[in-house]
Amino acid sequence: MRGRVRAYAPSHITGFFEICENSNQKYMGSRGCGFTLQAGVTTEVTVDEGRGISVIINEANVEAPTTRSVVRKLASERLVEVLSKTDVPIGCGFGASGAGALSTALALSYAMSLNLSYNGAAEVAHVAEIENKTGLGDVIAQTQGGVIIRREPGAPGIGKVDKIPVKDLEINHVVLGDISTKDVLGDKRSKIRINRAGKAAIKELLKRPTIQNFMLLSKRFAIESGLMSDFGIEIVEAVESCGGMASMAMLGEVIFSIGGYEALKEFGPVRTYKIGHNGARLL
Amino acid sequence: MRGRVRAYAPSHITGFFEICENSNQKYMGSRGCGFTLQAGVTTEVTVDEGRGISVIINEANVEAPTTRSVVRKLASERLVEVLSKTDVPIGCGFGASGAGALSTALALSYAMSLNLSYNGAAEVAHVAEIENKTGLGDVIAQTQGGVIIRREPGAPGIGKVDKIPVKDLEINHVVLGDISTKDVLGDKRSKIRINRAGKAAIKELLKRPTIQNFMLLSKRFAIESGLMSDFGIEIVEAVESCGGMASMAMLGEVIFSIGGYEALKEFGPVRTYKIGHNGARLL
Repeated sequence: MRGRVRAYAPSHITGFFEICENSNQKYMGSRGCGFTLQAGVTTEVTVDEGRGISVIINEANVEAPTTRSVVRKLASERLVEVLSKTDVPIGCGFGASGAGALSTALALSYAMSLNLSYNGAAEVAHVAEIENKTGLGDVIAQTQGGVIIRREPGAPGIGKVDKIPVKDLEINHVVLGDISTKDVLGDKRSKIRINRAGKAAIKELLKRPTIQNFMLLSKRFAIESGLMSDFGIEIVEAVESCGGMASMAMLGEVIFSIGGYEALKEFGPVRTYKIGHNGARLL
Repeated sequence: MRGRVRAYAPSHITGFFEICENSNQKYMGSRGCGFTLQAGVTTEVTVDEGRGISVIINEANVEAPTTRSVVRKLASERLVEVLSKTDVPIGCGFGASGAGALSTALALSYAMSLNLSYNGAAEVAHVAEIENKTGLGDVIAQTQGGVIIRREPGAPGIGKVDKIPVKDLEINHVVLGDISTKDVLGDKRSKIRINRAGKAAIKELLKRPTIQNFMLLSKRFAIESGLMSDFGIEIVEAVESCGGMASMAMLGEVIFSIGGYEALKEFGPVRTYKIGHNGARLL
């Protein structure tokens, strides 16, 4: 065993998606498009003799069911402490649960010399997200970095991804509140609307894979899927009237924008992050 | 059109490989394993009205057939200037031709607003490598960054890759000379030996995907394939006797090592680069 090991995973904001059911959790996931931010989750794991799991995020003891699933799968016979620091809020569509699970899986498999490949470790995180209904496509995107098109669903090494080529870009956002991924994905009518709008958006994006088209299709998806509130639409329109582009993070009550700083300011504290070009990795 | 556009692609050293023939150039390529370095190729393209191609690498006018193929494919109706700077030598197993072609493809498709996805642009570079017989698997590795296992051959989006999870690592190397990829791959007996040794190495690596195992299997491959000279073997053994690990870059007369700085010094000027974790991208 290697004692303490650290890993990083970027946060990930999805603009639009289509839910892809499968009885095999490795193959279940989503199609869609989103981007990673440089801001993310850094995790340090410590493995000792004994049994038990503690997960501490930003200095607070938390449940973190997805990360716990990863630890149970990889190190059920050990005493494991997981110490994560997250730059982004949890439950707001930043893929924090995926980033936590992925950084934990990478660090833990290395700490325990489990001989897992990168995709092997990442698959454990993907499956944990599916089991706990906390995400469908964040983990595979977080292994890549950039503006990631999820063309086919599934765990890293199974799902198929492409990217939109982009230069350095800044994303501004305001956080209005959180949304439970579990609740939205548990609602049958909501799922039908999501999948109809998501399928159309991906088809359009592949014809013209540019960041501008991604922003436009994300907004259209957020409205057509019924996921964006009237207040959200109001903010997006305010950004557009200042010449920017905006939409809502899936799934969180968060409005993200390119070039919308001034307009967003009216609606709450604005945070700005650069798009990250790099995937999760050991530190 | 967008005038001048810049892109970067990392260099890539292959430790072992297996040649995978296919009549479709997108599916042709190699299985194997290698790593990207932070050192790479940075390219600036300028597109104007008119017709013609000039390629300038490190301030010298050069033939650069692979990069020219990319330009002909993407911009045959335009006057294109490609200005590349490379941190690594050409023809020595650093994947410089792939990095030049990939950075050119990314920059050019963006400059001309061709609506290509990242994989779409990278595929043009992969096919150009196959056509010009300058490489088989560098481009897909250079889109990823890290220590890349090429599990299935082909262009980015077609071939399947995984990674060996690694922390920050420094690679030392000495350049003894260049080797023509074309000549080696054109020799039937050499191909048979390469494929026998390459297939065995990949199988072993997947059982234990660690960097130590990669170094060991690379050395075994370099000897069994007959590609490493007696002088190369002598250098590798000198590194090992100092507690390091070393092998030969495929295909170049270059010995790379982990922890071999002192031993390598005896054989020529040693350069040190960090393993790069990031793939090619627009700048």
